[in-house]
Amino acid sequence: MERLCFGIDIGGTSVKLGLFTDKGSLLDKWEIPTRTEDSGSHILEDVAVSVNQKIAADHLDRESIIGIGIGVPGPVTEDGTVIHCVNLGWGVFNVAQETKRLTGFETKVGNDANVAALGEMWQGGGRGYKNLIMVTLGTGVGGGVILDGEILTGSNGAAGEIGHITVNYEEEDSCNCGRKGCLEQFASATGIVKEAKRLLEKSSEPSKLREVQFLSAKAIFDCAKEGDVLAGELVEQLCKYLAIAMSHIAHVVDPQAFVIGGGVAKAGTILTDSIKKYYENNVLFALKNKDFKLAELGNDAGIYGSAKLIIGK
Amino acid sequence: MERLCFGIDIGGTSVKLGLFTDKGSLLDKWEIPTRTEDSGSHILEDVAVSVNQKIAADHLDRESIIGIGIGVPGPVTEDGTVIHCVNLGWGVFNVAQETKRLTGFETKVGNDANVAALGEMWQGGGRGYKNLIMVTLGTGVGGGVILDGEILTGSNGAAGEIGHITVNYEEEDSCNCGRKGCLEQFASATGIVKEAKRLLEKSSEPSKLREVQFLSAKAIFDCAKEGDVLAGELVEQLCKYLAIAMSHIAHVVDPQAFVIGGGVAKAGTILTDSIKKYYENNVLFALKNKDFKLAELGNDAGIYGSAKLIIGK
Repeated sequence: MERLCFGIDIGGTSVKLGLFTDKGSLLDKWEIPTRTEDSGSHILEDVAVSVNQKIAADHLDRESIIGIGIGVPGPVTEDGTVIHCVNLGWGVFNVAQETKRLTGFETKVGNDANVAALGEMWQGGGRGYKNLIMVTLGTGVGGGVILDGEILTGSNGAAGEIGHITVNYEEEDSCNCGRKGCLEQFASATGIVKEAKRLLEKSSEPSKLREVQFLSAKAIFDCAKEGDVLAGELVEQLCKYLAIAMSHIAHVVDPQAFVIGGGVAKAGTILTDSIKKYYENNVLFALKNKDFKLAELGNDAGIYGSAKLIIGK
Repeated sequence: MERLCFGIDIGGTSVKLGLFTDKGSLLDKWEIPTRTEDSGSHILEDVAVSVNQKIAADHLDRESIIGIGIGVPGPVTEDGTVIHCVNLGWGVFNVAQETKRLTGFETKVGNDANVAALGEMWQGGGRGYKNLIMVTLGTGVGGGVILDGEILTGSNGAAGEIGHITVNYEEEDSCNCGRKGCLEQFASATGIVKEAKRLLEKSSEPSKLREVQFLSAKAIFDCAKEGDVLAGELVEQLCKYLAIAMSHIAHVVDPQAFVIGGGVAKAGTILTDSIKKYYENNVLFALKNKDFKLAELGNDAGIYGSAKLIIGK
């Protein structure tokens, strides 16, 4: 009998669900809306209903299902307790126990950025590595630390919060976290747009960016690829700050590789090439020559990683 | 039969050896000189002779000895291979296999700073923690990362090289590693003395430091405790840079505690209190309230940690 499991990624607007074999094949995936009303108390009920519907529709043998893995947007401790998932309306409770109660299946829970890192290691851009750092450049900057094939959770579930490594001690604007100069302020999709507006205001140099109606990270990278000087400066700055944070990370855990994902990473090798250049200048000799990879699973990284959580090493 | 092991710390001038019970009691300790001639080829032979002499002198039953742990001054991979221990004259070879060949005992090998961290976790200032960072402030700045009760080695044996985290991007003098602005340039015993000379030259403010014949880290901390303004500034700067590096580390691994050791740490709570103050301003909310402890084992941390290496979790 083929062993199966569910990999589930709970986001603020939708819940992504995937049915996997324990060898890593994604058999099917679907989404349901995230009901955040009533302090998010229906979210896990909806997940349980959706899992049971899938089992019934596909005539799956419950005995073949080894369990459920779940990624959630917030800090999670080793035992599956969340500590305020603001986007879901959740307070403090044990998501693993509650899901097991609702479904009967063993459940493991991880932070969404960490789980995405595990997914990329298993079936994405990090295949073949057991020690890697994933950096997700989206609206914010998320991170995941994988050591010996497993997520590093940290003592309060806050390992891999690399978007909040301070990279610029001169910055005067505040980050969402309340501090100043976080990586997220420069390397997120919103961060680079903000930096672009700042630069365009300060500089009188001509730039295609001045003609773009809605500035976006994509527009900035596209202009940089076409040789626009100011856009090029913005990309260099983003890569420089990312490389600074990565160099700090390397001196702590000495990973094999960095995997870069999220919307901004769609820019491609312009990003990894430039990061590598700055990184090499910022680390000890023994930490040079790391691999810099682009993520491959896109929005599915979370369901892959959640499945891997329950499958184990 | 009581189970025993040897914990051995190989330094550039002497080899420290300890005989331990597997419960953590140090039964005896002694030293032999480190013979670095002939590319350090006699060092492990001398260790084997010393171990065998101890077994004979104390009429120990060889069956009661579970093995040997060794700390070496340089990068070591998981399997016990060293990659150039410059201070010992060693190239690349497997220290664990060679020691087993010479003694007949199972051997495990770790980097000296990492092993000291493990020792402090086991029987020193880090007792009770399973996830901690040790920072050793000596001639240089060493580090050790302990996760789930074990040393994090890293993919090239360079995890925990926190003395080379860049903390000052304006610095123009070079670190021993060839780069500029490393933590070691500000927080080591040699670093703070160099900073003191710089400050005394630049400032015309009166200071007791001007009367000290041989400036040392101890003299600077002593003057700071007596209220000397310039000495106080130097201590604050050292603590600020240490806190910056610790905040970077926290965002990666989220440890329970930091343990501070080495000669400079003899300054005591003036150091931990000030570091804590700067640290709290430099981290995400979820990473606040870590414990800052002083190391307790002094020069014995290495032999304790080496013993723990072979005893295991």
